[in-house]
Amino acid sequence: MDAARVIDRCVTLAACTEDPGKITRTFLSPPMREVHRLVGRWMSEAGMQVSVDAVGNIRGVWGSGPRLMIGSHLDTVPHAGAFDGILGVMLGIELVEAVKDRALVPYGIPAPYGIEVVGFSDEEGVRFGVPFIGSRALVGDPVMDDTVLEAIRAFDLDPDEIPKAAIGKDIKGYLEFHIEQGPVLEENQLALGVVDAIVGQARAVVEFHGKAGHAGTTPMESRKDALAAAAEWIAVVEKVAIEEQLVATVGRLDVRPGAVNVIPGVARATLDVRHKDTLKLERAMKLLETSAEEISTRRRIKVCWEQRSVQAAVAMDPAMTEVLASAVKAACCQPYRLSSGAGHDAMILARKVPAAMLFLRSPGGISHHPDERVNEGDVASALAAGKAFLETWRPA
Amino acid sequence: MDAARVIDRCVTLAACTEDPGKITRTFLSPPMREVHRLVGRWMSEAGMQVSVDAVGNIRGVWGSGPRLMIGSHLDTVPHAGAFDGILGVMLGIELVEAVKDRALVPYGIPAPYGIEVVGFSDEEGVRFGVPFIGSRALVGDPVMDDTVLEAIRAFDLDPDEIPKAAIGKDIKGYLEFHIEQGPVLEENQLALGVVDAIVGQARAVVEFHGKAGHAGTTPMESRKDALAAAAEWIAVVEKVAIEEQLVATVGRLDVRPGAVNVIPGVARATLDVRHKDTLKLERAMKLLETSAEEISTRRRIKVCWEQRSVQAAVAMDPAMTEVLASAVKAACCQPYRLSSGAGHDAMILARKVPAAMLFLRSPGGISHHPDERVNEGDVASALAAGKAFLETWRPA
Repeated sequence: MDAARVIDRCVTLAACTEDPGKITRTFLSPPMREVHRLVGRWMSEAGMQVSVDAVGNIRGVWGSGPRLMIGSHLDTVPHAGAFDGILGVMLGIELVEAVKDRALVPYGIPAPYGIEVVGFSDEEGVRFGVPFIGSRALVGDPVMDDTVLEAIRAFDLDPDEIPKAAIGKDIKGYLEFHIEQGPVLEENQLALGVVDAIVGQARAVVEFHGKAGHAGTTPMESRKDALAAAAEWIAVVEKVAIEEQLVATVGRLDVRPGAVNVIPGVARATLDVRHKDTLKLERAMKLLETSAEEISTRRRIKVCWEQRSVQAAVAMDPAMTEVLASAVKAACCQPYRLSSGAGHDAMILARKVPAAMLFLRSPGGISHHPDERVNEGDVASALAAGKAFLETWRPA
Repeated sequence: MDAARVIDRCVTLAACTEDPGKITRTFLSPPMREVHRLVGRWMSEAGMQVSVDAVGNIRGVWGSGPRLMIGSHLDTVPHAGAFDGILGVMLGIELVEAVKDRALVPYGIPAPYGIEVVGFSDEEGVRFGVPFIGSRALVGDPVMDDTVLEAIRAFDLDPDEIPKAAIGKDIKGYLEFHIEQGPVLEENQLALGVVDAIVGQARAVVEFHGKAGHAGTTPMESRKDALAAAAEWIAVVEKVAIEEQLVATVGRLDVRPGAVNVIPGVARATLDVRHKDTLKLERAMKLLETSAEEISTRRRIKVCWEQRSVQAAVAMDPAMTEVLASAVKAACCQPYRLSSGAGHDAMILARKVPAAMLFLRSPGGISHHPDERVNEGDVASALAAGKAFLETWRPA
């Protein structure tokens, strides 16, 4: 197994882009053809049977009988880094590379299962605003929007074949390697992290309606300042997040009319709250809604709370995760557990099969950015942990 | 004297606009010609000698010898109401109308002075971003920007004549009537308010520089959220304003990158603070700057404080204001004192001559808006107070 080759391959694929000089590769965009050519060759060299399914996922199968699926995605956000998603696919190929000459007896231990490596065509959802087009087809919940089907045809694939992309009973588990995309492992000086859950996520738009007025002629006690109300509430968002041990973010705040000498009449904030416990998430949202109402009533203004979405948390399979944690230990790393604040394909696959996920440290916590990196040593540790996982995990 | 006529004339002038259906009339714009024609006619009918000076102020002189100047402005903000500025000029004409047939003995009392009514060409500063083009010429501090001079020429006026617009020793005082543009008189159920000072005004732009990050993967304790810092500071702005009994406004807040799922990296706020005591104003600015720094240091982010302008407070002339207060009492109104939170031409004229100012109630506190109104009864009270002022005030 070769960590340097894994990184090299990620960098090679970064050249397949819609936007020369930057890395942008969306669902079934032209550069994805070259990605398929390269990934297909590497899969073949590792002894896999290669195919591309009807939603553009590239799939390589090694061995026969019940299989472990190892995968991640090959699309990117605009102006992305080289590793988000791609790294997981390259690690899968490298692990098969390591076992290919040992037939069904990897590492000297009879392993009564094959391995399928999958590179998903879409996880980021950039092209059509719908994420997980790749993995959703595997769990029998394909995205069937006309624009998506059109793109499939334009890539010389046949939408009628989409049902055949769904996984069958022969897939016994799903393992995903991914960069953390956050600072936690780095702050704890850890190479790897075992994901226990992918957090649930709730979004709302909160609009405070006060009254615009002249900044010079309106005394403080006569004001109905929408921004002052929003600011008070944003402080509560931060306080509740810390107290309830979750993350909550106000990422946008639009203030109207937005002039230096006019008291804001309207302040519109977005809210994004995440936690691995869906009940706790819903309680926090209720708390923040009540707080917005209390603040607005006290300030004699109005508030409009519009819940946008609640996505339940998804727990990883406890038994499979336990095997993964032991494998991390076997690779001489601390089996540190954390939850994923971002969504991943593992969250979709978990609907059908036991799923587990391993994070690699993100230097600087940076992702979705050209400065996104991964340490070669951490990749080596991930390969060692992956090898140990393959030696010990058995399909149920 | 006729309050209804004063209001009618304001409404008539509202039809002179750059933007049909709305009221927009900037410095020396084409509709100002028709305003000059109408106002000039009304001034003539009231017995005044009418002229337009080189910056486009229309000036009507009644009587001879030392003079009291009564004025306000004839320009508007975009999509304005009909009364801001205009009303003060119409009240001046109506007061002359009332005295014209009495020669130099208005109201039976010998008044050894004439009256000059002035309608300023620009106070709002909309066309060139420079306010008070009209009144600044009168105090010998004309705006000499090339674009302004060009506009003067285009209106068939001669920039070389600007020095002649300056007032001489014969102007002994300046009186301005204006709508309050705020809610204070209405909240106190008062028709009129005697202005004791025009507040000083300080502006700053305050930019908080944190670090953008993923809303899902960055724990609260690792964040450098620029908006959270700005929100904490905005709460301080409000608290300091209430404690220090001044007005302070954050009217704009721009948040970047401004995505639902991204922790804000930059939050840029504008600050507008006003108080009639310049020292108190400067102390409040210092307090708010220190607070922004304290918040940013504690949050491990950076803040950039850019002071934009400090305009000192301008007190009205105490003796003239005392006469005005007595005149208000004589008109059976309470001589309620308040300071003006907005700038006015009286602030410019006060550099050269004693100045006093009377506010009329703004229904709903509304101004700079098509819904701007004035009560006929309040206009009648202003006329009665103006008449009493003319009977008792004497040039020094």
